[in-house]
Amino acid sequence: MAGGPVRIGLLGRGTVGGAFEQLVAERAEMVEAATGRRPEIVGALRRSEGSFEQVVSESELLVELIGGLDPARDWVTRALRAGVHVVTANKQLITQHGDELLEAAREGGAQLRFEAAVAGAIPIIRVIQESLGAIEIERVSGIVNGTTNFILTEMARTGASYDDALAQAQTAGYAEADPSEDVSGADAAAKMAILARLAFGTAVQLDQVPYEGIEQIRPEDLAYAKELGLSLKLLGIAERNSEGVGVRVFPCFLYPGHPLAPVEGAFNAVTVEAPQITEITMSGPGAGGPETASAVLGDVVSVISGGAPLPGPTEELAVVGDPSSAFYLHLEVADRPGVLAQVADVLGRNEVSVRSVVQQGLGEDARLVMVMHEGPESRFFQALEQIAELEFLRGPPRSIRVIEEEFT
Amino acid sequence: MAGGPVRIGLLGRGTVGGAFEQLVAERAEMVEAATGRRPEIVGALRRSEGSFEQVVSESELLVELIGGLDPARDWVTRALRAGVHVVTANKQLITQHGDELLEAAREGGAQLRFEAAVAGAIPIIRVIQESLGAIEIERVSGIVNGTTNFILTEMARTGASYDDALAQAQTAGYAEADPSEDVSGADAAAKMAILARLAFGTAVQLDQVPYEGIEQIRPEDLAYAKELGLSLKLLGIAERNSEGVGVRVFPCFLYPGHPLAPVEGAFNAVTVEAPQITEITMSGPGAGGPETASAVLGDVVSVISGGAPLPGPTEELAVVGDPSSAFYLHLEVADRPGVLAQVADVLGRNEVSVRSVVQQGLGEDARLVMVMHEGPESRFFQALEQIAELEFLRGPPRSIRVIEEEFT
Repeated sequence: MAGGPVRIGLLGRGTVGGAFEQLVAERAEMVEAATGRRPEIVGALRRSEGSFEQVVSESELLVELIGGLDPARDWVTRALRAGVHVVTANKQLITQHGDELLEAAREGGAQLRFEAAVAGAIPIIRVIQESLGAIEIERVSGIVNGTTNFILTEMARTGASYDDALAQAQTAGYAEADPSEDVSGADAAAKMAILARLAFGTAVQLDQVPYEGIEQIRPEDLAYAKELGLSLKLLGIAERNSEGVGVRVFPCFLYPGHPLAPVEGAFNAVTVEAPQITEITMSGPGAGGPETASAVLGDVVSVISGGAPLPGPTEELAVVGDPSSAFYLHLEVADRPGVLAQVADVLGRNEVSVRSVVQQGLGEDARLVMVMHEGPESRFFQALEQIAELEFLRGPPRSIRVIEEEFT
Repeated sequence: MAGGPVRIGLLGRGTVGGAFEQLVAERAEMVEAATGRRPEIVGALRRSEGSFEQVVSESELLVELIGGLDPARDWVTRALRAGVHVVTANKQLITQHGDELLEAAREGGAQLRFEAAVAGAIPIIRVIQESLGAIEIERVSGIVNGTTNFILTEMARTGASYDDALAQAQTAGYAEADPSEDVSGADAAAKMAILARLAFGTAVQLDQVPYEGIEQIRPEDLAYAKELGLSLKLLGIAERNSEGVGVRVFPCFLYPGHPLAPVEGAFNAVTVEAPQITEITMSGPGAGGPETASAVLGDVVSVISGGAPLPGPTEELAVVGDPSSAFYLHLEVADRPGVLAQVADVLGRNEVSVRSVVQQGLGEDARLVMVMHEGPESRFFQALEQIAELEFLRGPPRSIRVIEEEFT
């Protein structure tokens, strides 16, 4: 890029936009010392106020913090085609139109950076694209939604119900009034799709990422976890094997050796595994105004310094067919002889192997908690359907995945 | 950089050199897809075999894996001055001659990268220089020596003595036959000096980094830690406050909320704190052949992609005078009345405030374990000298720092 100040156009002036303006004012000198050029915000607009044409014509770099798809998609595409670099924190935009935008960036010879779209201040995108850009990544696992990790941490710490912990997260500002995007797992799925794209070079669409949320988690699941020294987390996993690439989000129990097990509260963390590096884990606070602004400014510095590789054209995605998992199964049953035998029989006929069983009496009813060995999920779910029809069941069976492997 | 293959000269063909050659062979295609240029090793030499002049004249990038200062310092300087980029894993070279080499790089218009010199496969240097390059870092804390963390983890897990755990680390290949560089804290001090330089832009010389090792740690210290839920780690801390910059390495107890508390075995981890990001922690395996080779190849990719900011000229280092710490104090004393009162009196006269005391009888002797509140180290060490002279002491007093703060 040429000399003189870096002319930045700012789209969006909400919480993050304000934090970014403040950060640029504070750190302009340091950026100039490091890169030789001083960042300067030459124009800014809100969704409903200001002229995009004017801002883009005066800028060599746009910072898009307006959110949503409309008009962000149109504006970012036009800027990139015109050779104006773009830094964005817009996860939705990158997940749904990432390929199209990267194509526009190639056409216009512009850079597109989006570190702030995933995992707040943790520079996971840069690490995957650059530091690990030349090695073959096998798996990316992440706690990429701070709201749900806060809720699960509170439930584990205090024994609170899901509803109470959610209310607390809302009071603390960690959950929106309508929390469905977070608690359903949809937000985590979108972020995992972005990470999978970068780690494996395959375009992953949102509808190719099956996800489950935490709405069904009960205090007794967390009590069980505590008793066995496990952590219950909403985990995103993107992995590649000989069949293809699979990306999924689900709540699961983690054993203490797992690098994501100690991640608590509204923090995010991502573990990347590859044969050459074993694994690397990065953790930090989830997205807040200052964290996002800091990630955006880091991207601005990268754009000024120039030249990180754009992700190349992507391969077709071959979705992994039937992933293999271990499960915890929670059944409320009538307390009478033969119940365990019948459940065990159904599991056995479906070739699901039982690892441990705990049976507790509850007056007339009993609680059966079983943990399975790892095996194809299809077999377990088939067994689960058959178990749900057993006449002695007192409620629907509930199951949660278990991540067994020791990492270290 | 120009098109065509990237001509790499390799200095050093030991374990890491071999792993690097293999990695380049495996991943050349992927690097080409990402950067447009294929890495190719055009010449290689050992310390005692091959001509440096020939290798450097054929290369546009040198990978220095020869280690030590002679001839590495001379070769790297000459290459950089001639405009040949250098990627090195040589911690000693960077710590002792980093400024001189960066000056040579500026002169020659070449890049110098050294991600592999600190923390194995963890891309901490890139993250500090680039992702966090525009924010004001307050503190960098690290477990940057895998050997000592392995030994402390084994002592905690099995109750082994220091000598037994060291022998085990040697058998497992985690410690050298002469382990003094690692167990004394010197290796960690050199790495922290590099991190401090990058985080704060101040040249830190090795003799400005006071360090303590783990040779004095006893099983009873770890037993105490376990009882209170603490972890005992060899920690490096680099911090900046209004007085200047301080860099230190010492064994210490960490409270469970500390992000480095769960780091076990031969792993490394680094936490960076700044107001805008709260904190980011990165962890992964310490340096092994494949991890180091992978970090080196990441640097090669960065050089090809071009243009990350070189660290600018550095400020003078103002060393922080009297850091503030909390301490654990272990005394073996005669079991008789008035002992605790006298110890407490010495502490009080030196304005050291006691947080907790446990006294255990041991037949004729007693053990006194005290934890202090945080305060100036000078006062505590003055009290310690006076306590050492009390006539009822049965052995030298032993103290270990305690990191109290909760991070999350």
